[in-house]
Parts: sequence; C-alpha cells; structure tokens
Amino acid sequence: MAVYTEVGDADLEELLKEYDLGAILSFKGIAEGVENSNFLLRTESGSFILTLYEKRVAEADLPFFLGLMEHLAERGISCPLPVRARNGQALRRVAGRPAALISFLEGVWVRRPRAAHCAALGRALAEMHEAGRDFPMHRANALAHDGWGPLFEMSRQRADTVEPGLEAFVAAELDYLRDAWPVGLPEGVIHADLFPDNVFFLRDELSGLIDFYFACNDLFAYDLAICLNAWCFEPDNSFNVTKGRALTQAYEDVRPLGRDERAALPVLARGAALRFLLTRLYDWLTVPSGALVTPKDPREYLRKLRFHQRVASAADYGLH
Amino acid sequence: MAVYTEVGDADLEELLKEYDLGAILSFKGIAEGVENSNFLLRTESGSFILTLYEKRVAEADLPFFLGLMEHLAERGISCPLPVRARNGQALRRVAGRPAALISFLEGVWVRRPRAAHCAALGRALAEMHEAGRDFPMHRANALAHDGWGPLFEMSRQRADTVEPGLEAFVAAELDYLRDAWPVGLPEGVIHADLFPDNVFFLRDELSGLIDFYFACNDLFAYDLAICLNAWCFEPDNSFNVTKGRALTQAYEDVRPLGRDERAALPVLARGAALRFLLTRLYDWLTVPSGALVTPKDPREYLRKLRFHQRVASAADYGLH
Repeated sequence: MAVYTEVGDADLEELLKEYDLGAILSFKGIAEGVENSNFLLRTESGSFILTLYEKRVAEADLPFFLGLMEHLAERGISCPLPVRARNGQALRRVAGRPAALISFLEGVWVRRPRAAHCAALGRALAEMHEAGRDFPMHRANALAHDGWGPLFEMSRQRADTVEPGLEAFVAAELDYLRDAWPVGLPEGVIHADLFPDNVFFLRDELSGLIDFYFACNDLFAYDLAICLNAWCFEPDNSFNVTKGRALTQAYEDVRPLGRDERAALPVLARGAALRFLLTRLYDWLTVPSGALVTPKDPREYLRKLRFHQRVASAADYGLH
Repeated sequence: MAVYTEVGDADLEELLKEYDLGAILSFKGIAEGVENSNFLLRTESGSFILTLYEKRVAEADLPFFLGLMEHLAERGISCPLPVRARNGQALRRVAGRPAALISFLEGVWVRRPRAAHCAALGRALAEMHEAGRDFPMHRANALAHDGWGPLFEMSRQRADTVEPGLEAFVAAELDYLRDAWPVGLPEGVIHADLFPDNVFFLRDELSGLIDFYFACNDLFAYDLAICLNAWCFEPDNSFNVTKGRALTQAYEDVRPLGRDERAALPVLARGAALRFLLTRLYDWLTVPSGALVTPKDPREYLRKLRFHQRVASAADYGLH
C-alpha cells in the first residue's frame, strides 16, 4: 500500500490539459503497490490509473515498461494500456516525478487462488511470452541470478537474526545455483513478478495482468518457476501439485516446454525462491519497526526453497 | 492513507451475498483516511465505499454515524448514504471488524481552496446544521473543550521537545479557555472535522461532505470555527480574510449567527486551534519515526492559535 507523493490541484489540472478526457469526476490514492504512488482517476471519458514512479523504478526503464504494455495490448494481451497525451507521449512528469496515465483494468485479484485460477494464469503467462517475442526493446533483469550474490551481501551480516543458520544456508544455495544455473534455454520478455495481486479475475475468468515494472529479458521457464512459487503453495507452505499441474499444463497448451526447460525447472524454482527470499530479507531488515507497511516474512520463501531442494524432477511439480 | 485490515475473497463474497448489487467488477484499497480501512468497490450496480472501522472508532458510536448520514441524505444533504443489506441493517461485520457499505460520492477534494470554495463550504455547513436539527440521536463530543486538559496530559511532558515553551503556552491557553468558553450558544449536530479532504467538488461546485466519524452534538459556531482554521489560512499560516468573509457570509445566508455566537467566535477559534494542536501533538509524539504515514506538524496549529489570540473581534474574520 502506498501513496508517497501528493498530487496537488494544479498538478492534476496541468496534466489533464494535455489529454482529451473531459472533466474530473473523482481522484483517489490507491493503497496498492509498494513501489510507486497510484491514483484512481475517473473523468467523463472513463477510469484510469495515474502512476507516479518513485525511487525504486529507474526512469531510464520507463520507455521499456510503457512500450511493453502497449505492445502486449496491441497483440490482444489484456493489460493496462498507457494513454498517450496529445503530443504522442505517454511518459509525463507530475509533482516532480515521472508519471504515466494508464487505462483502468476491471477485475479483482484472488487472495486464495484455486487450481482453475492457476490454469488461467498458465495460459495467460504463455500468451504473454509469445506476444512479447517481437518486442524490439531489451532490458536486463536487474534481479537476475548473477545479482543474487551482491544482493545477499546487503543483508548477510544480519541474516541469522531472522533465522539461525540462514547465512550459511543462503551461501551454500548461492554456490549451488552458480554451478547449476542452466544456459541456452529459450528466453524473451518475462513479467518476473506475476504474483496473485498482479492478476485480475472477473467472475472467475482472468481479466488482465498488471504491474510490468519488473519485466525484463530472461528465461521463459524462470517466469513459470516464479509462478509455481507464488501460486501453488498452500498457506502452510506445502506444495499443491494439483495447482502445479493446472499451471504448467495450461502453459504448455500455448507454449510447450522443451526437454531442457523441464529438466531445469527444479533449479529455476530454487532460484526463484531464493530471489524472493533475498529481497524480502533485505526489506525485513531495513523497513523501520512500527512502519505501517509490514514487510513480508522472508521465511516463507526459505520454506519454499527447502521444498524445491527435495524435488527430484519436474514431475514433482505436476508435469508429466 | 490506510488499509489496516485485509479483506479476503471469502469475506467479500459473504458480505455481498447479503445485498443485491450484482457481480464484483473491482475492489481496491484506498489510501485515504487515517482512522479506518476504506475500499472502493465497483459492482454491476454501481460504485461503493466499504469502510472497516478500526480501533479508534468506538463501535457503540456507529449507529449514530450511519443514522446521521441517512438522516442528512434524506434531507437533501449530499453525503454518503449507508446501503442497507436485505435484512434492513447497514452495520455489518467484515474480516472481524464492524463495517458498512456506503454509496460512492463523486468529486475531488481541493488541495488549495479558494474563496469560492470557502463560500460553498459555508453554505453546506449551515445546511448540514439545519438538516441535523431533528436527528433524534445524541453523541457527546469526545474531543470537547472539557477533554482538552486530559488530552494534553498525554503529551505534556514531551511537548517542549516539539517547540520550546510549548508546555507552558498550552497550559496557559487551557486556563484561559476554561474561563472564557461560552455557555448557552445554539447547539446541535456538528461535523467537527470538516477539513478540505472531507469536502468534494465537481467542476467547482460542492458535490458532497464525507467522513462523519467525528460528528457529535456541540456548538454550531464551534463547527464554523473549525472551518475557519481549516480553510482560511494560507500555507504561510497567514489568515486570509477574504476567505473568512466568504465562508461566514455564505454560512449566514442559510443560518444567521446570533450576537452571542459572533462575540464568541474568537474564543471558539482558539479552542478549535487548540483541539487540533493537541491531537497532532499526541500523534507527532507517538507515531514511530520512519512510519510511512507522516504525522501532521502540530506547530501549524500553534501558529494559527497565536493568530486567534491577537484577534479583537469577529470582524477580524471577515464578519461585518
């Protein structure tokens, strides 16, 4: 939840002068998204989200993110569409911050996904991967596997305060992944953060994907591994293989995995779990106590990672 | 900004079963309001606000607040209307908290009110006072003048860390107000927190009043004094007499002030400034440093209070 930057009357009026959206009917800060400030804007011509990009999003990456949404929307992927101002530009400045107005997507994110939701997600993920193939821009993954070591260094000394033995555990896992990480797998544009709160449903039909601000070029199967982590574990951190099967089968209905991708899936799932373990660990140790935003418990991903360490093959995720 | 309580899929579905609002189209936490958790809900039949009442709102007061909104709306005051469930009740429980679904009010609050906004506010305030006259319920003001002493005791020892001399200044002001506070002035239901963020405008017309969760029975002129504090000072804390005149004249067009109310206005304005100084002082000293919600600076109201101390008569606020 977050609104970090206040938008004044004059800021909003000035912005809207550059579009043809009619009069303002409503303007409210939204308590979602940890990275940026988001506002729901309703005007005579419809509903929009105004996003102000805060520090954690690099301004140089914005043309990639906005261009990607436009590219995917043009290819039939349901995702927010940046609204271009009269001068043709989607990227603006509001209240001193880079900002964009994007179309409002109907739907509700599912707090407790069921297998049918996982299937819908799998299909949408594969469709997104296919639709992004001819996107001409490139963005390296800022949180790719070779960045996890430096990321860990920022929390390493206090890791054992979160869970005894965590420092040694992560160090060993980093060593393992450095050797085991696959090379030569198919890659392209991935979402890289497709958690349930970034997927909207309307009457149990998937209605859209949002929040492309981690999107980058990386392994397709790594994106699938992130979703296995984010969607297929139960609240007690047990893996639900029915959900895993639903997710992967629906993905493969659109984009079948290669043998090498299947073989690599357990390693990719370990990497995905470690990536979220590390960012959560960092947030856990740096967010001030008493802050209204409670950081997410990194130990959830420690438990998921331990599950993946015991996986023998992709069949354990429900692939057959 | 605030969403303190998460609402799960099942919570929402269970709630909506009790109404006839059609399918859910969207559900988002709103980053406004410091006291409660607010969500914007869109269904096939329209837009609504779902409010979950958090600790600072006493559950026993909710029938007063909801009943008042219904009463005022029936008398033509534009304010949120509680939506009654099929069983006739507006007050529900959601995710373990008392909750209510209220109608969504279009409009935008004005970050920098101009004199015309103050005039619209004055008229609406007086209309609200008149419309509330036959509201049958009663709620004592939990932050009335006789509660300011005890409130100050909670911050007193650290007051000088905020501004040197503040403790003695407030103690003297409390003494003064104890003697000078008027008796026998007209009273009724007041809003008691009609700051700019609780008043919506649509194309410069006032479109509604929101957030009745401080409403109570107290002096009408005290409510006007709160608005003088909240609407008529410039960012440099100078008083704008044009705005004061616009506010009070428009108020008097609907409900003329008595001589005794006019005479008391400087004292009431001092009291209103002290009331917000004290709650802000308390929040300032108790909100943990680093929290995402920055408490408002109490010194703003110290400066306003000093202005009121120099006021000779109601004419200084623009009354004639």
